[in-house]
Amino acid sequence: MKIHYPAGVKAPTNSAEITSKKKRRIHPKIAAGNRGMAFEAAINDTNTYYLEKGVAVIHKKPTPIRIVKVDYQKGAKITEAYFQEPSTTDYNGIYRGKYIDFEAKSTHSATSFPLSNIAPQQVKHLRAVLKLGAIAFFLIDIVKTNEVYLVPATYICDFYEQKPRGSIPLSEILTHGYRVLEKYNPRLDYLPILDEYFFQ
Amino acid sequence: MKIHYPAGVKAPTNSAEITSKKKRRIHPKIAAGNRGMAFEAAINDTNTYYLEKGVAVIHKKPTPIRIVKVDYQKGAKITEAYFQEPSTTDYNGIYRGKYIDFEAKSTHSATSFPLSNIAPQQVKHLRAVLKLGAIAFFLIDIVKTNEVYLVPATYICDFYEQKPRGSIPLSEILTHGYRVLEKYNPRLDYLPILDEYFFQ
Repeated sequence: MKIHYPAGVKAPTNSAEITSKKKRRIHPKIAAGNRGMAFEAAINDTNTYYLEKGVAVIHKKPTPIRIVKVDYQKGAKITEAYFQEPSTTDYNGIYRGKYIDFEAKSTHSATSFPLSNIAPQQVKHLRAVLKLGAIAFFLIDIVKTNEVYLVPATYICDFYEQKPRGSIPLSEILTHGYRVLEKYNPRLDYLPILDEYFFQ
Repeated sequence: MKIHYPAGVKAPTNSAEITSKKKRRIHPKIAAGNRGMAFEAAINDTNTYYLEKGVAVIHKKPTPIRIVKVDYQKGAKITEAYFQEPSTTDYNGIYRGKYIDFEAKSTHSATSFPLSNIAPQQVKHLRAVLKLGAIAFFLIDIVKTNEVYLVPATYICDFYEQKPRGSIPLSEILTHGYRVLEKYNPRLDYLPILDEYFFQ
């Protein structure tokens, strides 16, 4: 059975895998479902690397969960809870004194990035932080080509609000985005792109 | 039965109450357990006010939860999960282009603020963001006098790391902190303190 989560709500991920320090190569043939998790793990590993080097402090926010029942007889075991729609993006933090804010998304399409991947409140959130001087962007994982692009949030928000179509052609992502090279460590070294294009 | 959460882990709060737009006066005689929730609600209301005015984007991070079992037959109902220790502070965001980071704590003592309220990894986190140029602080709710103080994180971290004693005397909090006045709206207007003492 396939579960359809509301826009912007992610399927639960295995936190043990995400926080694992084990370095894995992302292989293009990795199963589609695992790919999103592997992408998230690569970002988390990268952020851990930055944190340990003292270069940047950027964390993934926990998935918001609405708790209904807690069993206090068993050491505060949550027995009924539900996933909630996030009102912000997944990642934020600080780099070179600036507030950093981004969202990570995978697309399995060979031709486009569907806007249904993005929740309206995330666009609203990005607009609000951009107005206050944030550095905001998307990390987009193109599964078919095994490439990751950093795309400025202003471009994605403009496209989303004008909605000339339901998805952004990948050619546009390649034009307006910057390729994030996969390395051994850090796995997705995106900060140099910020240095070059977002800091003057 | 009283549950002892690990340092820095909060008891589950009723999210309906927290996100309520209803304005309530915090009364000094409010039950101790509810007081922490009322304090959190006051901060959240304040941040909502700032967000709506476009002045600052500051959110409380969701409580990190380790999910063990999800029942997909019932629309992704979480049936087994546990509270986790947060590795960061509860609140962060952006104001006047700067990265803002803070933790909110209540103390029921009439004489001191116990350091056991703070988890070691929170001090580590605050040190890391301060080093990168963050504006970081604590909002300390002194329940007995019904007063809230904004105390710079540098002061609290210094005290915590040197640990001359297990708690900070309230007289020190009053000396090194700035009183946050409770108003009707925003309820805990802490940004003017940042304007005056953290921005030059």
